[in-house]
Amino acid sequence: MPNTKGAGTGEDPAVEIVAGNGLLHRRLFLTRGAAMLGAGGLGLMTARPGGAEPLEIPPWMRSPGTHMSAYGQPSEHESDVQRVVGGTPNVVGSGVSFTPHHRLHGTITPNSLHFERHHSGVPSIDPQRHRLLIHGAVRRALTFTTEALLRYPTVTRIQFLECSGNSGQNLGPEPPQAPCGVIHGLMSCSEWTGVPLAILMEEAGVDPGATWVLAEGADAAAMSRSVPLEKIMDDAIVALYQNGERLRPENGYPMRLFLPGWEGNMSVKWLRRLQVTDAPTMTRDETSHYTDVLLGGKALILTFPMEVKSVITSPSTGLSLGAAGLYEITGLAWSGLGRIRRVEVSADGGRTWADAALTEPVLDKSFTRFRMAWRWDGGPAVLMSRAVDETGAVQPTRASIVAEHGERMNYHNNAIQAWSIADSGEVSNVYA
Amino acid sequence: MPNTKGAGTGEDPAVEIVAGNGLLHRRLFLTRGAAMLGAGGLGLMTARPGGAEPLEIPPWMRSPGTHMSAYGQPSEHESDVQRVVGGTPNVVGSGVSFTPHHRLHGTITPNSLHFERHHSGVPSIDPQRHRLLIHGAVRRALTFTTEALLRYPTVTRIQFLECSGNSGQNLGPEPPQAPCGVIHGLMSCSEWTGVPLAILMEEAGVDPGATWVLAEGADAAAMSRSVPLEKIMDDAIVALYQNGERLRPENGYPMRLFLPGWEGNMSVKWLRRLQVTDAPTMTRDETSHYTDVLLGGKALILTFPMEVKSVITSPSTGLSLGAAGLYEITGLAWSGLGRIRRVEVSADGGRTWADAALTEPVLDKSFTRFRMAWRWDGGPAVLMSRAVDETGAVQPTRASIVAEHGERMNYHNNAIQAWSIADSGEVSNVYA
Repeated sequence: MPNTKGAGTGEDPAVEIVAGNGLLHRRLFLTRGAAMLGAGGLGLMTARPGGAEPLEIPPWMRSPGTHMSAYGQPSEHESDVQRVVGGTPNVVGSGVSFTPHHRLHGTITPNSLHFERHHSGVPSIDPQRHRLLIHGAVRRALTFTTEALLRYPTVTRIQFLECSGNSGQNLGPEPPQAPCGVIHGLMSCSEWTGVPLAILMEEAGVDPGATWVLAEGADAAAMSRSVPLEKIMDDAIVALYQNGERLRPENGYPMRLFLPGWEGNMSVKWLRRLQVTDAPTMTRDETSHYTDVLLGGKALILTFPMEVKSVITSPSTGLSLGAAGLYEITGLAWSGLGRIRRVEVSADGGRTWADAALTEPVLDKSFTRFRMAWRWDGGPAVLMSRAVDETGAVQPTRASIVAEHGERMNYHNNAIQAWSIADSGEVSNVYA
Repeated sequence: MPNTKGAGTGEDPAVEIVAGNGLLHRRLFLTRGAAMLGAGGLGLMTARPGGAEPLEIPPWMRSPGTHMSAYGQPSEHESDVQRVVGGTPNVVGSGVSFTPHHRLHGTITPNSLHFERHHSGVPSIDPQRHRLLIHGAVRRALTFTTEALLRYPTVTRIQFLECSGNSGQNLGPEPPQAPCGVIHGLMSCSEWTGVPLAILMEEAGVDPGATWVLAEGADAAAMSRSVPLEKIMDDAIVALYQNGERLRPENGYPMRLFLPGWEGNMSVKWLRRLQVTDAPTMTRDETSHYTDVLLGGKALILTFPMEVKSVITSPSTGLSLGAAGLYEITGLAWSGLGRIRRVEVSADGGRTWADAALTEPVLDKSFTRFRMAWRWDGGPAVLMSRAVDETGAVQPTRASIVAEHGERMNYHNNAIQAWSIADSGEVSNVYA
């Protein structure tokens, strides 16, 4: 059905080829330029000229529909848009579930599809009984009820959360052939509203020599991490709301720590205790997990920020392109060190690159959606994206990470992702 | 339990009284200034000094919790955070449901709680059978399948949607004593992703003399509105995704028109037909409904933008303040004509005003969350907010709207909202 002649692009001044294998200038995806896409000759026409053919009156227009609902749910036709659940063998309640980014669009992740990482399952917490204790090297220890915290001044920010182990599978010797959301689905982005921890710490009165804070969760694992006091006083919050509503149980209800830009496990869920100390506590979770292996067998610990990264969400593995013609290449870029400055895309496996259009507003430590117009000629192609953040950091190649860490690394993989398109239109994951 | 001595504010240079009845300078709610709130003396301390008292080990830490889930749901303890459903007597499938803004925070509305307004219920549409027809004064009529539209280039924007009848109850002779979300809950804010209509219209080829477009929905009411072609070509989209996932059925699945800043009913849900014309079609929905009565009995029709407005969501009706002390006054501001420039708050019924802090980023035609620090002295107070948008338009008083339209007006009520606080702490809706 698609009409994909793809002829005549040379005649349209808005259509400029900017890199190899059919990448077109991003102006096509900016406000007014987008209209040029429809002006003909681009092979975009997936519509069917309908002529005088009248629309049928479908059955759902013949009688009134269903009533209003108190708490809505997705269409039954989208019931397969779910988190992909994976457990950890032989460990009760430990595991992950992945956000299906290949089925989503925009930058906000719905709460129902936010990724999960639990160390001992999701506790069912009574908010009236839950307490947050701040103690240790403070002038006076304080205990907060949930109700009390809800009265405190709040801030609201849209920011990503990424598991330190996200994309770790891509450091193995063979590229996994899984959907984008399963390789890269341990990341999500939400609007978080909560109480700045600086307020609570000032109220407790931090001792002058203190430098670290131990954060402990109220799950059965008592998941614990050490956080530098400087981060706590800078932009840490006790998050109470996610995308407008109260946190979901699997994301820390009734309250969680949120550390913008840092590895996800440090944003301790079901937060119950903050102990101010003068050194990292060296908990089980920060010594046995979440360390970065180096060649030779040593490992880096306490490596906190999630660095600059991007991934093309469409096209991606498991999708199959139809006929040759115009496609939107789109994906997500983010950095734990600040704003995204630039995303480049390549359609020829990294030989040539061109700038993608970034969706405004580009926010600090948040997902940024990028888009690129691509005229696929029906031949082989390798799609890649490469992000640069405002510190000037450039997303590295997989080869450079392997050269430093080998293929035993599990964490902090921010390597460039490559998707290969076959003549048939099938997409697969490749190391390129 | 709250310690609310409220003493010593005069000693702290960060605490500046900026308007009558206890309003404090917004710097308290900006990044670093917020820490000053906890420094003591402000009567904020709702925490309990815990001393050496150890935390109990709650039951949910004694055994592993529940497993990962494919599509998450809220905590059972938040099951009363729902849309408030109201029907229209004797009209099957016609009615509204309200977003409970008094229970939410931030600016994004979760999809499950987005307000509803249906004219004949929610149709259950098979996306594979649904078609969008563009016809009328075009070079060639086009029919789009859902699958075809999903291949088109998209844009992503965070924008509000407000029913023209939102807050209409507040134009009656007596102020309704309902929660904030029931008086003002026919508005929500989402991240919308969809195809710019300019692209589709260029593909169809609009005739030179055309000036209007009729939009028709695939519900049993065939809800129809006329839209100026200029708006269609400017910023209208066919929305496919809402807050990252595909549209919900009650918000137009599989596709809806979205007209940023304009009255909600024009963003026709379940969009099936766009007919290009040279005049408004004068449909039932734009002549019998959605018109603005004037004194004397005439009515304005085709009044599209939702103008500058704000409302304090907390404190609001139904809530009762506890002891005297520091409170966060917070609410939402928005304008269908652009960005919010300023929100002022009054605690003395409009005699004195002070600037609230605005949450960044302030986006075009989007909710902006505002916050104000307030030291309640335990006496009577009347809280109001007044927004100004980037065009310089100022939110009007209820009295000025009544002077122009009388109390028979149902639509476009953007009047200043006033909440009265009694000595007891109880909050009620008042006309002030």
